[in-house]
Amino acid sequence: MSGFPELLPEQQIVFNRSLQIIRETFEAFGFAPIETPSVERKEVLTSKGGEEKEIYAISRMQSQPGEVGETEFALHFDLTVPFARYVAQHKDKLTFPFRRYQIQKVWRGERAQKGRYREFYQCDIDVIGRGSVSLFNDSEIPSIIYKIFDRMDIGAFVIRINNRRLLQGFFEAQGVAHGQIADVLRAVDRLDKTSRDTVFADLTKNLGLSEMQASAIMAMTAQSLPTDELLTQLSNGASYGNATYDQGLAELKTVVAGMRSLGVPEANFVIDPSVARGLGYYTGTVYETKLIDHADLGSICSGGRYEDLASFFTSEKLPGVGISIGLSRLMFALLERGVLPTGAQTVAPVLVTSMDPARMDYYLQTAAQLRSNGVGAEVFFDKKGLGDQLKYASKKGFKLALIAGADEFSTNSFKIKDMRTTTECTCLASDVTETVRQLLAE
Amino acid sequence: MSGFPELLPEQQIVFNRSLQIIRETFEAFGFAPIETPSVERKEVLTSKGGEEKEIYAISRMQSQPGEVGETEFALHFDLTVPFARYVAQHKDKLTFPFRRYQIQKVWRGERAQKGRYREFYQCDIDVIGRGSVSLFNDSEIPSIIYKIFDRMDIGAFVIRINNRRLLQGFFEAQGVAHGQIADVLRAVDRLDKTSRDTVFADLTKNLGLSEMQASAIMAMTAQSLPTDELLTQLSNGASYGNATYDQGLAELKTVVAGMRSLGVPEANFVIDPSVARGLGYYTGTVYETKLIDHADLGSICSGGRYEDLASFFTSEKLPGVGISIGLSRLMFALLERGVLPTGAQTVAPVLVTSMDPARMDYYLQTAAQLRSNGVGAEVFFDKKGLGDQLKYASKKGFKLALIAGADEFSTNSFKIKDMRTTTECTCLASDVTETVRQLLAE
Repeated sequence: MSGFPELLPEQQIVFNRSLQIIRETFEAFGFAPIETPSVERKEVLTSKGGEEKEIYAISRMQSQPGEVGETEFALHFDLTVPFARYVAQHKDKLTFPFRRYQIQKVWRGERAQKGRYREFYQCDIDVIGRGSVSLFNDSEIPSIIYKIFDRMDIGAFVIRINNRRLLQGFFEAQGVAHGQIADVLRAVDRLDKTSRDTVFADLTKNLGLSEMQASAIMAMTAQSLPTDELLTQLSNGASYGNATYDQGLAELKTVVAGMRSLGVPEANFVIDPSVARGLGYYTGTVYETKLIDHADLGSICSGGRYEDLASFFTSEKLPGVGISIGLSRLMFALLERGVLPTGAQTVAPVLVTSMDPARMDYYLQTAAQLRSNGVGAEVFFDKKGLGDQLKYASKKGFKLALIAGADEFSTNSFKIKDMRTTTECTCLASDVTETVRQLLAE
Repeated sequence: MSGFPELLPEQQIVFNRSLQIIRETFEAFGFAPIETPSVERKEVLTSKGGEEKEIYAISRMQSQPGEVGETEFALHFDLTVPFARYVAQHKDKLTFPFRRYQIQKVWRGERAQKGRYREFYQCDIDVIGRGSVSLFNDSEIPSIIYKIFDRMDIGAFVIRINNRRLLQGFFEAQGVAHGQIADVLRAVDRLDKTSRDTVFADLTKNLGLSEMQASAIMAMTAQSLPTDELLTQLSNGASYGNATYDQGLAELKTVVAGMRSLGVPEANFVIDPSVARGLGYYTGTVYETKLIDHADLGSICSGGRYEDLASFFTSEKLPGVGISIGLSRLMFALLERGVLPTGAQTVAPVLVTSMDPARMDYYLQTAAQLRSNGVGAEVFFDKKGLGDQLKYASKKGFKLALIAGADEFSTNSFKIKDMRTTTECTCLASDVTETVRQLLAE
């Protein structure tokens, strides 16, 4: 089924490890989990830009013609719209600022093509305020991104940070008409995907900017300097006398200071004035994240600050800041490219072999004892020779194999074969848990 | 949206804790994760009893009339059928015996009613062999069930175990025709849901059994004795001279012995000859699990052994044994009944308050240090008085609040308020991580 990929166990284990890192990191920063149904009413999904998305509707296969109430549901295509509906619906039961994470599958009826999935995971966090939400949240988010991808061990990456006010103020200072700001932002956003000439032509020919205006915009967004030098250079722009620009710059400085307090290494972030994020609703800080060695994947984690999360569902102003990781697309690519090598087909590290089926009680007890001490263990149940059992241990990727036959029973001991090194050792049966723990800690 | 429930964060945290216990326990027993797409081809889903289920089909909202290939997909209604398809499709890349777990949402187009959900989680494990699969797996499964529900702390429960061969052999010995065995099993299966009189009438009037036959079946399935006494009593049945009965009994004895080796307490299991599991495909051991104080929930974890997983998809015989936990239904009921009390709205235990916004860098660094040492921490960012910040800490359920204002800065210290006891202590800033850890360990 094109667009609906599935993984082998050894791949799923790697995938789940990333999911777990993301979950743990979100929770370590005080984000609470929520989960919305996969299904929403169609009018909810199409409320905010959803009409541009390819949405899957659902209907009962056995529905009767003319049946009422069975054609109103569809699968969500992202987590933002359901989250907006959730916050508006439950806001009197939530504590604000509301920090939530949401890791769920979403569906899009895309044409099948390489790297496009019809079902995939998104991993989102947002901080939502009632009326306002502190800028310090903006400075914390890059630290969350950093912690996740650092632990996931997927190679060098850089978080590209910008502020939409900085761009908007600059465009205004160049005399771009208010009604054209959004179009110019969208044009600049394409700098990452197309040639500079194309963007220049877009600005001048399609949007009617003068060559001088377009050149100024191209030069401003092309600035590439170490963070502090760039901030100094951008500060020269304060001479434009544009308050929006000044606010954007001040916000950027706060974000950078916070990131540094939180220990995000300089190598992992950059202020990039060309980052615009095409989506209309971002208003301040914006983020993108790139893998240095896999730039073709585009941004693997993006987001930003917005003025109002749920205007379709409530009149209360709910500003926020958030990011989204498109995990499936990232993981499938990294697995395919061998960046994340697959290994074991089991999460449990120990196989208890069973040379003597008559002593299965003993093998079962040994495994139970290991598990009670936090060590995952499987018992080999089939009647097979030890060679076959060790072949199974090797194939599945167990780290240790425990062996007890006549010799070991007579000396009340266990043989432990380290499958990683193929070395063997023997210990007293009473010491087996402790010995296994030591070997696994190596 | 009736049938599509969603939880508040404090409920979701409890729900996720159960999910995590299930995941960890499955993995500790050597089961590897897999995940199949939520979507399968319709003919896959209807291959095996699926035509009786209420299936949700999906279609692109923007599809053109007559568009090809967009009406063939539907949402899976359980995890067994997709798993059968998965094993058949990938069997040459899998290692057998194949031990997998699968925790996913499934969808059913049910009429909305109390306790019936249209979207819910199932948590399945199965061990699949090529040609055969050891009976010891059957004895391990109750231990997995026990470990999960014991850790979930949901009150007293009992695993009811039986063997279909025992029933089948007994029915044969009573002269029940071969073609009627399945019907009689289905009638017996209803003993748990309806009166004994109704089942008796079903056996005699609908299935045409003699009153003597029906009485014998009622008496046999009504046996309720401590495990060893029951096994002795059932052994008297060996005089029936029915080989199927004898095999079922021998299997039951092996299962009980294995459970005892694995340390399943006697109070948590019982052999119950009335457990039949209506589903046609079980052939040997069968399991059900009941909450003593919430028997109205029915079986919260069921399963058994079957001869052939994937006969629709492959000619290779793939026998197995497995169980399924209907987690959503269980959790929603236990949350509603207060069996699983909700508490914190956050997983992170520490709130770092910010009395002096000018020192936000210091608060950020403190939180970062805690996180680096494995302690989740949120920084309070809004400009609010300490009283409001502590109110937030209390409302969200943080365990500890860290406080630093002018006094603490001058002495290079931190005040720590234990929100659980409202006691306060002070420590040096350099000792804050260690002190927090100690307080959390209490």
